[in-house]
Amino acid sequence: MLYFIGLGLSSVKDITVRGLELVKSCDRVYLETYTSILGVQNESLEEFTGKKIILADRTLVEQDSDQILEDANEKNIAFLVVGDPFGATTHTDLWIRAKEKKIPVKIIHNASIINAVGCTGLQLYRFGEIISMVFFTETWKPDSFYDKLKANRAAGLHTLCLLDLKVKEQSVENLLRNRVIFEPPRFMKISECIEQLLFVEAARKENVYDEETLCVGVARLQSDSEQIIFASLGELKTIDFGSPLHSLLITGVLNENELEMLKYFATEATLRKIEALRKDRIKNFLH
Amino acid sequence: MLYFIGLGLSSVKDITVRGLELVKSCDRVYLETYTSILGVQNESLEEFTGKKIILADRTLVEQDSDQILEDANEKNIAFLVVGDPFGATTHTDLWIRAKEKKIPVKIIHNASIINAVGCTGLQLYRFGEIISMVFFTETWKPDSFYDKLKANRAAGLHTLCLLDLKVKEQSVENLLRNRVIFEPPRFMKISECIEQLLFVEAARKENVYDEETLCVGVARLQSDSEQIIFASLGELKTIDFGSPLHSLLITGVLNENELEMLKYFATEATLRKIEALRKDRIKNFLH
Repeated sequence: MLYFIGLGLSSVKDITVRGLELVKSCDRVYLETYTSILGVQNESLEEFTGKKIILADRTLVEQDSDQILEDANEKNIAFLVVGDPFGATTHTDLWIRAKEKKIPVKIIHNASIINAVGCTGLQLYRFGEIISMVFFTETWKPDSFYDKLKANRAAGLHTLCLLDLKVKEQSVENLLRNRVIFEPPRFMKISECIEQLLFVEAARKENVYDEETLCVGVARLQSDSEQIIFASLGELKTIDFGSPLHSLLITGVLNENELEMLKYFATEATLRKIEALRKDRIKNFLH
Repeated sequence: MLYFIGLGLSSVKDITVRGLELVKSCDRVYLETYTSILGVQNESLEEFTGKKIILADRTLVEQDSDQILEDANEKNIAFLVVGDPFGATTHTDLWIRAKEKKIPVKIIHNASIINAVGCTGLQLYRFGEIISMVFFTETWKPDSFYDKLKANRAAGLHTLCLLDLKVKEQSVENLLRNRVIFEPPRFMKISECIEQLLFVEAARKENVYDEETLCVGVARLQSDSEQIIFASLGELKTIDFGSPLHSLLITGVLNENELEMLKYFATEATLRKIEALRKDRIKNFLH
């Protein structure tokens, strides 16, 4: 049996009781390390589960998956994924390869950033399509998110923006020279994401958003140092959200229920803005 | 401290390790019973946690919340919610009332139907706005979902349709006569949802979907009797998905990766349909 087990969002104790029982019963335990990170060190996970954890980087999962699936018809294998196994990052390839080999598969779900952002007060059924922001380079500044964000905001919907992370990536130079040297891990900060957002708005000029647009910055959700701040893009850009992971929520039309909860996360300037807007009886606003 | 603790989707063991520890440390434990159901009886939850569980119906949560929040500044109170506390149903009212009383609040996230449907193969970042289907009555057949579904499908996006459930509801007659008699719980079946979908399409006639539209029926996610079936609306209408909870996913444009996983859940007729479509090199289809 191959178990896909979600680890949840922050500490080792965010695994479900059933998930933990299964990990303990497994013959081999892999931890997917290239699409997300847990707020803890690998050693804590080994200590907590009592199992040796095999780190599974992109090469192992995507090219050497036979190694993971070896003997999985007789043995129990756990494949641990931060968040939910089919949440922000999907692991369908491994699932399909297991199915092709007639290996029974079972998924143990957990919280994902995709549903957990409901704790900001923004209602999950008022979100449009999710967007992703990748690290821009000198020559590559993909702006396909812009059209999606435009459609969401035109429909009054909120947008979850997932921020890029690079773990165990090689530089182009090292890749070309076939040198197995990895760059240090990089996690996009909210401030970096906003700079790129504003860069694309300045280039596209379709007035989808600006420095005044109200957004919610979210960092290290579910951890003890969790941060949720409701403010304008311009203000959020200046705030240091600290260590990863960061996400950004771009609001659409905010309803009264949402504002009622969001105000507990609002900066002083945002509170004044909300009050002014309320006084003007402008209840629906996009900026 | 007031803890909002997600229970996950099916069994008592779907709570997180941290969630269980907190429940055990709490002075009072409430279970929200009116927006969802766990696949287990309340007694199992009491046995599993070793705590007396106080059932919290809508009246208690919405009108008598002071009772829940009593002494919460000195004591630890747990408010248990099936799925994620701020997932498909939000409990922002109770959260806000706690904040107003300066009671510290902590949320323990868990899987929600909103992220767990990623296990069907449909990619979560290709979903549009969530819709809900309520039980139609003789005089009340709300079709606001139709415009949202239309927008999602026009953009090629998938749609999660949440199905109505009625727990501890009073009939209009009993309500008018002030008789505290509750109707038996009702959970909308996928077949009922599809009948209502087709009823509205027949009335609105904007060709948003028809009996040929490919959808995914999902029942009792994460339980041992979990069912996931990929088929046309017309075919799904005839399938008995058994006991609750049911959800329906209406597909938008399916990409190859999604089809590769979905085919393991496909009916014979759907497999033939996919193959025919592939042969015709029609890779993007809305029906």
